[in-house]
Amino acid sequence: MGYVKWSYKTLNQFCSDVFEKFGFDQTDSNTIKDVLLSADLLGIESHGMQRMVRYYKGIEKGIIHPKEKPEVVFETPISAVVDGHAGMGQLIAAFSMKKAIEKAKKVGVGIVSVRNSNHFGIAGYYAKMASDEGLIGLSCTNSEAIMVPTYGRKAMIGSNPIAIAAPAEPYPFLFDASTTVVTRGKLEMYNKSGKPLPDNWALDENGRPSNDAPHVLANIAGKLGGGIMPLGGASMVTGSHKGYGWGMVAELFSSMLSLGTPSDETCTFPDKTGICHGFIAINPKFFGDEADFKSHLSEFLKRLRESPKADGQDKIYTHGEKEVFARKDRLENGIPVNDNTMVELKDLCDYLHLDFAHYFKGYQIHKDPKFFDSNY
Amino acid sequence: MGYVKWSYKTLNQFCSDVFEKFGFDQTDSNTIKDVLLSADLLGIESHGMQRMVRYYKGIEKGIIHPKEKPEVVFETPISAVVDGHAGMGQLIAAFSMKKAIEKAKKVGVGIVSVRNSNHFGIAGYYAKMASDEGLIGLSCTNSEAIMVPTYGRKAMIGSNPIAIAAPAEPYPFLFDASTTVVTRGKLEMYNKSGKPLPDNWALDENGRPSNDAPHVLANIAGKLGGGIMPLGGASMVTGSHKGYGWGMVAELFSSMLSLGTPSDETCTFPDKTGICHGFIAINPKFFGDEADFKSHLSEFLKRLRESPKADGQDKIYTHGEKEVFARKDRLENGIPVNDNTMVELKDLCDYLHLDFAHYFKGYQIHKDPKFFDSNY
Repeated sequence: MGYVKWSYKTLNQFCSDVFEKFGFDQTDSNTIKDVLLSADLLGIESHGMQRMVRYYKGIEKGIIHPKEKPEVVFETPISAVVDGHAGMGQLIAAFSMKKAIEKAKKVGVGIVSVRNSNHFGIAGYYAKMASDEGLIGLSCTNSEAIMVPTYGRKAMIGSNPIAIAAPAEPYPFLFDASTTVVTRGKLEMYNKSGKPLPDNWALDENGRPSNDAPHVLANIAGKLGGGIMPLGGASMVTGSHKGYGWGMVAELFSSMLSLGTPSDETCTFPDKTGICHGFIAINPKFFGDEADFKSHLSEFLKRLRESPKADGQDKIYTHGEKEVFARKDRLENGIPVNDNTMVELKDLCDYLHLDFAHYFKGYQIHKDPKFFDSNY
Repeated sequence: MGYVKWSYKTLNQFCSDVFEKFGFDQTDSNTIKDVLLSADLLGIESHGMQRMVRYYKGIEKGIIHPKEKPEVVFETPISAVVDGHAGMGQLIAAFSMKKAIEKAKKVGVGIVSVRNSNHFGIAGYYAKMASDEGLIGLSCTNSEAIMVPTYGRKAMIGSNPIAIAAPAEPYPFLFDASTTVVTRGKLEMYNKSGKPLPDNWALDENGRPSNDAPHVLANIAGKLGGGIMPLGGASMVTGSHKGYGWGMVAELFSSMLSLGTPSDETCTFPDKTGICHGFIAINPKFFGDEADFKSHLSEFLKRLRESPKADGQDKIYTHGEKEVFARKDRLENGIPVNDNTMVELKDLCDYLHLDFAHYFKGYQIHKDPKFFDSNY
């Protein structure tokens, strides 16, 4: 699988034009584009340009309703429930996290639970919206069932990422992780490269561990059973029940408090996904001096980075640090996009009557023969 | 290692008498006893009678100050910071969770961050205090450093459990898990039985995986390096950075918001541990009808339990379910206490001038030759 690098400026212009063509106004296009490109800038390729096709297909199939606006259906000074009306996930999520932030600034905390949304991109984006304002932020989402609960053989819970951010120097703490051991995107990368899956990642249709990427992915696509293990693997010996528990925590703040659709039922409807999100913002000022909190956290993060390394390792990262370096590198040296994603972008240009060659000058489309589009 | 069973009534009377002898009034003795015995009833042996010695030694050594009362040092309608003044952890924790619950009932949410406390027993006890009142509860604590951060070789973070509870029928959702792959107690059980440690649990002083329980435990006791892996193991391939991140989240709500002592510095002082806790209560009424929330959650939990089982498995548990059965069994059939713990209880009786034979009629003390007290 080959890669081609494009400047941030190129992809920025391309995305803006795409979303405006889909009918979003400039502000909304900017928000969607910013979430997508943030993923690529932070090195989370699976959630950047590679996901463009998911949004395009979602709109085309009538699962995403681009004209719908999020509606606050219940509200108190510390809380809100939002119905996304199956609109664009990024817009619903940004709207809801803004609301949580406003509440946290005013009364110390804001908790917003969202139902009937769509994929919102990287969870970390919204958690960081809070930490950028000096707050602690939490963001989570449920998603199409892919996690097999401990000792089960049917996927019942999504990859259900939870992200938590807090302000610190020289960069914020930003923890963003699926509650499965890995995401489906990782299985797809192994599939494309023809390598067997690492142990403790996936289960077959009988709930037995499997290293067979094409088999597991075909099962997932056909809903034939099996899926991905929770963080902690498939056995309680390695903490399987803990990843399963964290997946449930994401469910609690997204689909449960909003009375929305749990993961086992999302993405089973013809006209919506039903995906739910949860957002929390907490104001450190309501616990004392916010500067003291920030420096206390910064010092601990520094001690972690400077603590002794394992044999053969030269770096201990704190959460969010790697992404800071990735962002710097990609802004300077360009964002890698794989050739298979370029095929999808060409299709998208054809669909929207945009001139592919205008954005991606000199690029020749070539589809990787191993490419299997398992997104749909 | 042999076990002897005692009735709840016997242990209840014994614990009450012990804590009153230590100088706690009846209400406080009851609280401490209830936390300890709840662990045994729920099947979490490592945090029940087996821990009695830790509290006794803590008081004897002047690390726990039984006369000190928790003090609220900062407060708003949604938040509080509590200084435990190195008092008894269970009392500080129960006081602080009560405060969070009161706030949640009044304004929808209560967040209490606690510094300068001591071991508080099982995290789940306090989360369940909230769910017993119809609220979502979160409880977490930091602890003596035992988790080696991803790619490190020095323990920098505690086992840092986080518990989250929510009301449901026929039993609440109660997720209570260390953010390390296992706790030190599990290593001690393998040590006592002479078995090698399972893979993906522990690291030696060079940050290399180790199955050698006595070696790893001696390293931990002597602070010679190494320790326990985060949930997710030692490699990012299996999600090591995720367990490490969850450990940090416990730190955020306990030692960071309270400006207390992070795990890497706790238990290094001569006259206190510095252990910190975090408590959150959230009121579902502030998101709509609380009965709807409860039934929505109960239905999803039911679907999880009833979902297809892996080959060779006949049960999928939801979190907190196993503990309900354990409690019923132990109330009916007695609570197992191991012979080594009985040795400790005999010492305790001698220290407090209590008549061991009065409580534990007919029991003959016999110390297991493999017994190694690595708690101190």
